[in-house]
Amino acid sequence: MKVTQPVRLTMVGGGSWATALVKILSENNVSVKWWLRKKSDADHIKKFGHNPSYLSDVQINTRKVKVCTKIRDAIRDSDYVVLAVPTAFIADALTGLKPEHFAGKYVVSAIKGMIPGANQLVTDWVSDQYGVPTNKMSVIAGPCHAEEVALEKHSYLTIASQDHTCAEEVADLLRCRFVQTTPVDDIYGVEYSAVMKNIIALACGITRGLGYGDNFQAVLVSNAMQEIKRFVDAVYPKHRDLSGSAYLGDLLVTAYSPFSRNRTFGTLIGRGYTIQSAQAEMNMIAEGYYAVKSIFEINRQFGVDMPITNAVYTILYEKAAPTGAMNVLKEVLT
Amino acid sequence: MKVTQPVRLTMVGGGSWATALVKILSENNVSVKWWLRKKSDADHIKKFGHNPSYLSDVQINTRKVKVCTKIRDAIRDSDYVVLAVPTAFIADALTGLKPEHFAGKYVVSAIKGMIPGANQLVTDWVSDQYGVPTNKMSVIAGPCHAEEVALEKHSYLTIASQDHTCAEEVADLLRCRFVQTTPVDDIYGVEYSAVMKNIIALACGITRGLGYGDNFQAVLVSNAMQEIKRFVDAVYPKHRDLSGSAYLGDLLVTAYSPFSRNRTFGTLIGRGYTIQSAQAEMNMIAEGYYAVKSIFEINRQFGVDMPITNAVYTILYEKAAPTGAMNVLKEVLT
Repeated sequence: MKVTQPVRLTMVGGGSWATALVKILSENNVSVKWWLRKKSDADHIKKFGHNPSYLSDVQINTRKVKVCTKIRDAIRDSDYVVLAVPTAFIADALTGLKPEHFAGKYVVSAIKGMIPGANQLVTDWVSDQYGVPTNKMSVIAGPCHAEEVALEKHSYLTIASQDHTCAEEVADLLRCRFVQTTPVDDIYGVEYSAVMKNIIALACGITRGLGYGDNFQAVLVSNAMQEIKRFVDAVYPKHRDLSGSAYLGDLLVTAYSPFSRNRTFGTLIGRGYTIQSAQAEMNMIAEGYYAVKSIFEINRQFGVDMPITNAVYTILYEKAAPTGAMNVLKEVLT
Repeated sequence: MKVTQPVRLTMVGGGSWATALVKILSENNVSVKWWLRKKSDADHIKKFGHNPSYLSDVQINTRKVKVCTKIRDAIRDSDYVVLAVPTAFIADALTGLKPEHFAGKYVVSAIKGMIPGANQLVTDWVSDQYGVPTNKMSVIAGPCHAEEVALEKHSYLTIASQDHTCAEEVADLLRCRFVQTTPVDDIYGVEYSAVMKNIIALACGITRGLGYGDNFQAVLVSNAMQEIKRFVDAVYPKHRDLSGSAYLGDLLVTAYSPFSRNRTFGTLIGRGYTIQSAQAEMNMIAEGYYAVKSIFEINRQFGVDMPITNAVYTILYEKAAPTGAMNVLKEVLT
């Protein structure tokens, strides 16, 4: 389907992924209202056409993209609302909004994390809080570092929704000369997998920080794929092939890329930083930090064998020494 | 099973993988005869306890390891013969040997490639040439760069054999304080997968040389896993989970590691080197170069959908321009 009428879309978030998505959307016939929390960033974009804080090389077409800092104004006339803030800030970003503000709108989550405290996927939380029906909800996943989108490196996105038409329409919005998109229906599998890959990237970072090499990481990632499959199949049973780009690909780009903040966070932990000092050093939220707690707690009722998740959990939440936790883990990997 | 009597083993090959395996075997109660083609290397090892050409930091215990350059002497009293030379040189290395020289011996292939011209897996070729029965044949696979073994980085090997006891015994020989080993029975799946991962690493290198990024590589590798599964399941139908370390792990360590010679070869091709100049630059054989031809030709009778293998084949054997071939490939990836 070719988009012919300008679609009205709101981007919620001022980080690198939001900026990359705005860039992609500007390639198409989409009128974007871009909500940013920081007024100074919003003003800078209006004036200079660049986000001063993230991907500042990306030229923003200010004829197509209008920035604003009031969330109600931002979403008022939109057909689509894309959420792209860290899970730790999502409730705050949407403060003041009620279910009626979302009436009739499609909500797209570009967030790969669990709502801290609620142990909920973002789509489940949005559905609970704002009554958005599942056939209007989708998730953007796939191996796609914002930094490479900025450079227009050829990339692929997977759009998951329980409603095929919804997935297809969002896929159409995001397809452009350097991005291929594929609609799929496994929204829970894709969303959980996207969440869990951050835990694995964190684990990869920890082992890297401890001095383990590529041989070990390859085994860790292979075992991780099996762990993710066991968990997702237990929580949402469905026939799925986890070697798809939205699952394995997303894990690979995060676990192997120097751009990954989860991996970087883990590397600092592996080198002996405390959680506080690692977070201060990075000045960024590593979603895996919250995700591992949620997945660990959700798994209490499922009892899936999850040695990697458990290792990361004990390191981050039970003060286990990384060396010792990884010595235990390495014995159970095959 | 703990090895208590000194096992007599012959290592055939003087490269980095052979050297790493000798190092691992020296950790155990194994008496190694090490055959090298180059007399100067053999003499150097005898005199100084280091292989001057590969992994020269590795200390060779010359009480346990005896070097020699005559293949018949090398294998005469051995229980195990481990083959670790590039496929292009294997026939030459074994010149003069007849089936009777292999009588009663276990043969272990540490080679990840196809016999050029014969389009045969190494184990099939050894079986045909020397009459070694399948229950005495095994394959060493798994994500394991020789360079990291030299550094004693924690690593994992998979030993595949149709005979479980055979796989277990070889797994015991290779298990040591920094190497974990797992015996499995899918020798064909493991061996084909090990061969094909070199083709994929070559493809990764080509795209890297052309300027594609991490996003694209993650999708390429995900699609590659599906391509390998389609092929292996067609050629040797069997229930197998390709997310195991011997399949996915082996692919990852090759596709993502700077040590991978196949990836390096591909990168040079992607940058515009001719095959001859790339081979001259590297001074090493990239197994993927031969493997892609064999797999392409074997697939003529199976007709499996193999877009990545086909792209690499057309670049290396039909003079297709890398840019054009990858432009075609990228459209069919998802």
